[in-house]
Amino acid sequence: MAKLLGKLHEEKVFKDPVHRYIHVRDELIWRLIGTREFQRLRRIRQLGTTYLTFHGAEHSRFSHSLGVYEITRRIIDIFQEKKTWDPEKRLLVLSAALLHDVGHGPFSHSFEKVFGVDHEEFSRDIILGDTEVHRVLLQMGEDFPVQVAEVIAKTHRDKLIVSLISSQIDADRMDYLLRDAYFTGVSYGNFDIERILRVMRPTEEGVVIKSSGMHAVEDYIMSRYQMYWQVYFHPVTRSAEVILSKILHRAKELYETGYTFKRELSHFKTLFDGNVSLHDYISLDEGVIHYYFQGWMEEEDSILSDLCHRFIDRKLFKYTEMVSFTDGHLLSSYFTEAGINPKYYLVVDSSSDLPYDFYRPGEKEERLPINLLKPNGDIRELSRESDVVEAISGKRRTDHKLYYPLDLIEAIEDITLKSKIKEILNR
Amino acid sequence: MAKLLGKLHEEKVFKDPVHRYIHVRDELIWRLIGTREFQRLRRIRQLGTTYLTFHGAEHSRFSHSLGVYEITRRIIDIFQEKKTWDPEKRLLVLSAALLHDVGHGPFSHSFEKVFGVDHEEFSRDIILGDTEVHRVLLQMGEDFPVQVAEVIAKTHRDKLIVSLISSQIDADRMDYLLRDAYFTGVSYGNFDIERILRVMRPTEEGVVIKSSGMHAVEDYIMSRYQMYWQVYFHPVTRSAEVILSKILHRAKELYETGYTFKRELSHFKTLFDGNVSLHDYISLDEGVIHYYFQGWMEEEDSILSDLCHRFIDRKLFKYTEMVSFTDGHLLSSYFTEAGINPKYYLVVDSSSDLPYDFYRPGEKEERLPINLLKPNGDIRELSRESDVVEAISGKRRTDHKLYYPLDLIEAIEDITLKSKIKEILNR
Amino acid sequence: MAKLLGKLHEEKVFKDPVHRYIHVRDELIWRLIGTREFQRLRRIRQLGTTYLTFHGAEHSRFSHSLGVYEITRRIIDIFQEKKTWDPEKRLLVLSAALLHDVGHGPFSHSFEKVFGVDHEEFSRDIILGDTEVHRVLLQMGEDFPVQVAEVIAKTHRDKLIVSLISSQIDADRMDYLLRDAYFTGVSYGNFDIERILRVMRPTEEGVVIKSSGMHAVEDYIMSRYQMYWQVYFHPVTRSAEVILSKILHRAKELYETGYTFKRELSHFKTLFDGNVSLHDYISLDEGVIHYYFQGWMEEEDSILSDLCHRFIDRKLFKYTEMVSFTDGHLLSSYFTEAGINPKYYLVVDSSSDLPYDFYRPGEKEERLPINLLKPNGDIRELSRESDVVEAISGKRRTDHKLYYPLDLIEAIEDITLKSKIKEILNR
Amino acid sequence: MAKLLGKLHEEKVFKDPVHRYIHVRDELIWRLIGTREFQRLRRIRQLGTTYLTFHGAEHSRFSHSLGVYEITRRIIDIFQEKKTWDPEKRLLVLSAALLHDVGHGPFSHSFEKVFGVDHEEFSRDIILGDTEVHRVLLQMGEDFPVQVAEVIAKTHRDKLIVSLISSQIDADRMDYLLRDAYFTGVSYGNFDIERILRVMRPTEEGVVIKSSGMHAVEDYIMSRYQMYWQVYFHPVTRSAEVILSKILHRAKELYETGYTFKRELSHFKTLFDGNVSLHDYISLDEGVIHYYFQGWMEEEDSILSDLCHRFIDRKLFKYTEMVSFTDGHLLSSYFTEAGINPKYYLVVDSSSDLPYDFYRPGEKEERLPINLLKPNGDIRELSRESDVVEAISGKRRTDHKLYYPLDLIEAIEDITLKSKIKEILNR
Repeated sequence: MAKLLGKLHEEKVFKDPVHRYIHVRDELIWRLIGTREFQRLRRIRQLGTTYLTFHGAEHSRFSHSLGVYEITRRIIDIFQEKKTWDPEKRLLVLSAALLHDVGHGPFSHSFEKVFGVDHEEFSRDIILGDTEVHRVLLQMGEDFPVQVAEVIAKTHRDKLIVSLISSQIDADRMDYLLRDAYFTGVSYGNFDIERILRVMRPTEEGVVIKSSGMHAVEDYIMSRYQMYWQVYFHPVTRSAEVILSKILHRAKELYETGYTFKRELSHFKTLFDGNVSLHDYISLDEGVIHYYFQGWMEEEDSILSDLCHRFIDRKLFKYTEMVSFTDGHLLSSYFTEAGINPKYYLVVDSSSDLPYDFYRPGEKEERLPINLLKPNGDIRELSRESDVVEAISGKRRTDHKLYYPLDLIEAIEDITLKSKIKEILNR
Repeated sequence: MAKLLGKLHEEKVFKDPVHRYIHVRDELIWRLIGTREFQRLRRIRQLGTTYLTFHGAEHSRFSHSLGVYEITRRIIDIFQEKKTWDPEKRLLVLSAALLHDVGHGPFSHSFEKVFGVDHEEFSRDIILGDTEVHRVLLQMGEDFPVQVAEVIAKTHRDKLIVSLISSQIDADRMDYLLRDAYFTGVSYGNFDIERILRVMRPTEEGVVIKSSGMHAVEDYIMSRYQMYWQVYFHPVTRSAEVILSKILHRAKELYETGYTFKRELSHFKTLFDGNVSLHDYISLDEGVIHYYFQGWMEEEDSILSDLCHRFIDRKLFKYTEMVSFTDGHLLSSYFTEAGINPKYYLVVDSSSDLPYDFYRPGEKEERLPINLLKPNGDIRELSRESDVVEAISGKRRTDHKLYYPLDLIEAIEDITLKSKIKEILNR
Repeated sequence: MAKLLGKLHEEKVFKDPVHRYIHVRDELIWRLIGTREFQRLRRIRQLGTTYLTFHGAEHSRFSHSLGVYEITRRIIDIFQEKKTWDPEKRLLVLSAALLHDVGHGPFSHSFEKVFGVDHEEFSRDIILGDTEVHRVLLQMGEDFPVQVAEVIAKTHRDKLIVSLISSQIDADRMDYLLRDAYFTGVSYGNFDIERILRVMRPTEEGVVIKSSGMHAVEDYIMSRYQMYWQVYFHPVTRSAEVILSKILHRAKELYETGYTFKRELSHFKTLFDGNVSLHDYISLDEGVIHYYFQGWMEEEDSILSDLCHRFIDRKLFKYTEMVSFTDGHLLSSYFTEAGINPKYYLVVDSSSDLPYDFYRPGEKEERLPINLLKPNGDIRELSRESDVVEAISGKRRTDHKLYYPLDLIEAIEDITLKSKIKEILNR
Repeated sequence: MAKLLGKLHEEKVFKDPVHRYIHVRDELIWRLIGTREFQRLRRIRQLGTTYLTFHGAEHSRFSHSLGVYEITRRIIDIFQEKKTWDPEKRLLVLSAALLHDVGHGPFSHSFEKVFGVDHEEFSRDIILGDTEVHRVLLQMGEDFPVQVAEVIAKTHRDKLIVSLISSQIDADRMDYLLRDAYFTGVSYGNFDIERILRVMRPTEEGVVIKSSGMHAVEDYIMSRYQMYWQVYFHPVTRSAEVILSKILHRAKELYETGYTFKRELSHFKTLFDGNVSLHDYISLDEGVIHYYFQGWMEEEDSILSDLCHRFIDRKLFKYTEMVSFTDGHLLSSYFTEAGINPKYYLVVDSSSDLPYDFYRPGEKEERLPINLLKPNGDIRELSRESDVVEAISGKRRTDHKLYYPLDLIEAIEDITLKSKIKEILNR
């Protein structure tokens, strides 16, 4: 089947604050951007609840997806200029780059945990199902949608293509570090992307980095490390996330126990039932979630109503470093005694990051290592060449925090009980 | 009545990409930021539909309000350092700066036009009514809320305070130019704000600018001029705005003619009836609007459903320079003939800007001129000193465009009719 | 004759703070950069005495020349990508871009005025004479050096090539505005160069700008306007320039009257005699000038010694707006009466700028207008389309200032005389 | 003795690209900046020969010194605002910050090694000797110059003051990282200085950092690490440095063996004799050195002449990783055989960096550790809290390179000899 979509008559550009301009030269890419499934990403924030900590972090997955596309395009253009790349693969990689997050829903992390949905599965469904995205992809060949889905799922046989989208130094990570740094306003996420793009070299096993560019990669790894702890795992963001999860849990629990909601549940019904359709899923976005949460503020159930108030009006939980197991038990019983349901109001949240990891086969989440290409043609894994990376390599750092509503504790009338709780929390 | 709110024990900061950090030292400001009415501004975009043109423009009125507060704080700090400012006024100005936009709803411009609501009135209601904001302000004195409202309404007797928030070179304009430039990624909005703050001088009649800083002000005026035409009046943004207005019009029309909506109208009912309460108004935000528009995509009424599809999926109207009056009439009748309702599908939109204006008493929207302070103490209006400003001063530039759905026109089966329409549109 | 210099085996890059990287892919360009005549530009500041006002302005003509080359390269790459450019011309344009300033000496402006030398003539001599530059150029063909010289001299028959290097929106101006803004730290010089490069179109008569990019060009013109008055004509810079000129005048005068200098005059001798050779000229740089000026601080002649002290130790003249003709005469006689030689210590300096000009044939310095390309293919001169540019177009703005040594005036013992002088200066 | 110099009538500002503006409010600081000894720093580049690698690195010690002053001023202002600082010490610290580098000569590193001069001694002499700087300082009290000298020499009893200027996170290091990054254009040197300034706390033992700011400090340490290896130790810069040293060596050797120089040696004579006076030293700057080197290009001695040509025209030595001891000997004898003097043309250069070090008493160059202030008031040394810093702490990384003139080797006529040399160099 002939490829029906060629070059655009005239290049289109999007003004982008991170990459200055995003250049679209292919009819295929232009049409994919115009689909409703892709446009929907405008209504889902890239960083979930982070905007409640860093007010600038209001950017969407739409912006990020364009950014990943643009970085990939630049990498490929450099490869093509050096004649080290098969131009036939171009549109496949670009489509996968653009669509890699298309299955994301609002606050994906919490939704996936509570409702057992999986954004990667929805990505696949959007690419292969009855959607505008699928119809556009089909014009490149009957086989094309499946190939795009395979690249995104990392199951495609072409390792080079997969590594451009999913590795420890791929277009996805590079865009989100730069973009999240730009929008939050923190300086940590910056690194010299132009230099990194220039030292990338394609091999059959994936992209490698010329060793002369090692320092730029070190700087990128350190950016990642800093962004994780300064932004992504910020305890205030996690406090909002904790409340969000508890709202979803509570609503589901109420639903399952036959509670009658004042507001119709249409969007949530299939989620609660565990059989959400693609159509329903696509209509979910952060605006819809906010609509429900605002409605639930008026519900009879005081836990649901209170939690929604907290989320919408940003009256978040406070936090402390995790207390001991014994103390946790004690707190839990004190909370119950004080009439505060510990199931919803005493929450442990753990974050942990592995800033860089070399390949350890057989692990659940295998991560492709970053390989350096030495002047003599040898390939060396990054952490064997870089002291700095070696120092943080494979070291999982974990942080446990306990979240609780300080205002409710302050309002406990039994002075002794209150002081016992506060004593543990302030330890 | 004693002022109950003093200095914070420790300064609080917000990371802000435009001003680096936003510094809060006063308990009053900290509490105002925490109110639900202020937090609600997180759910209203600063630039309405502009994000459909410049994808980075996803920032909220919350961010902007913090920015206006911060610029005002810096101005006052400089004044206090030079001992040219009465410290008693500090919290009044800062509160007004922070709250100046608190009455804004989603897509204010369109909502105000269609439903006759007025965000300035709601600002007043939020400051003086039964709200968290009001209760916080009250702690500074019984009279304090009224004073804040008067500063925002520009009716306060202290002209200096008013001019800090509302003049042609106030904290509001300075923040939005810088912020909108940052988030859209265009370079036009930049000017040397640090220099401008340093050459501002307080007088009883309002802020004046030391004439040695004239060039920085020229640069600011040119930024404004460029931002208006490059960003604020961008025809694609206006296309989305046009569709949005038509959706509201159509829904209202349907409501008034007794149409039965599938989805309950709760939020919109009082808007349609023209008696929206403060409580209802506050619960309106862009998420809620998106929720309704997504629901209305499923309505029976094909116009409402189609327009909502266009807005949500970004299938916007195309535009052309305004055609002649005669051609307009002709087009309208051709549209009707083709079964396309011109009332909703053939829209003229005009934008016009006055980049800088000196004082012309008696005009509807009086604009305070920018005054320069000469070394000898004389005050001179800016356009009398600056060639560049003089050149664009008082010159209203207007742009008329005609918006229409190209896809519907392309689908017209009557070839003759279609070609007659296209001929006019391509003139 | 065959072209001996081809593509480099591997691209070379220079890290550049303004353009991020400067990319060199041609052996010819690489070798030209390595010549001693080009390397010499490292020892000549781009902005002469401006570093005495803006301490960051310490950048050299070497950096600027690389920048002009890089912008030209980017323009050509875009042209080639769109297949609107003859690749044969590439190296000619790039060489001319790189070498356009190669004949500049230290503080060119003052040296040219005092000694009647002409940097354009020296550019020609370096390109055509017995130099490393010439020998490298020769390898591209016997005719090549002459062609490069013609492009730089604007006499080449190919108007398009000339316009890339010398027009009102050429690579030279674009680089110096961005670079001078970057190094001085002022924000005025910024404009969206990426956008301008994208809307440039080659025509036989020179480069034109797609009219959709008009606002970016307006912004560029305003940047020029601001940089002239904020940076290039800064009165403190001109004060240093005034002293520099007077030093050269004095030294020449002393030489001509047979004064015996303590320090040998080698470099200056031929300048004084008006027969400076290319070899001597090339060995002149700012370090050499500083060496002499420091030596002359120890000369017997008190005027030469004092002026050199002022220049080296930055004890500059103060300035005032130009006084009337009568007052000027009066001041001159008062200065003489006070024993201060007005020839060296009372100096009028005028600056004048024409921010944008359309073509007025027959004028001494014809300036090519900026032409816009309309969608229908028409060409329109910029000021006929842009209100802002029209407002400042063809309007020469001139500024006259009077420079004098305040310290010497303060030291006048005759109180009456001193007060008469100060009265005039403070008028 | 009364302090004669107070506040300036009106604040003075310098536009600075790194810190935006440098603010001067004290008459003392203003006058110090105006002294000839301080103005002389304009003629000495901050980064010596680095401009031959990164062409933007043309900035002077003058700019840097203003920057160190400005950072110190900001730190003190924050301390004073928090009332944690004795205002009496203000001018002492600011003077020391401004003058800390005042004794630097051109290419200090090489000059100190070859001629045994010491810039710290000259700093002391300038502050305490018969200079304009000394006379200005004296106006603050008879004791004042000595105190300033002691702060710079780190012998002042007030450890807090010393730590602001000389510690592992002082105003000096913070300015040079930011400034050198800005002017070279590399991104590595950036860190969030505003945050670091806000978490600094004064103690009697020196400045400490609130532990909540640890990540910002980690980022700063990593910036230092990257700048050392990417910029400061760049092998091309070191190649120029190697040649510079060899020029000085050769000239001194010739002088000592009675060689007659064509050009008078005035500035160098006392350096060669080892008795350079303060007056002579101050008149040395990079311009003067360039003047001599250009003259020496014409000397009879072919080694001196050749090396000067290389330095001036940037025909530098190539380099390779250090060869073995045996190979070094072999090379040396081959060079001699080929008529290339290995003493001047075969040079080993080593660089080594200790990115961060905790306190190890008794070491030659004790470095004050960075201490963190925990919420509970405890003080903890940085590397005990930070994994990243711990990883690179106390680890000296060293790099040895061998420099040689590839062009001379290529020109060796004895093919066997040449190939033996090249074989060793390419190992």
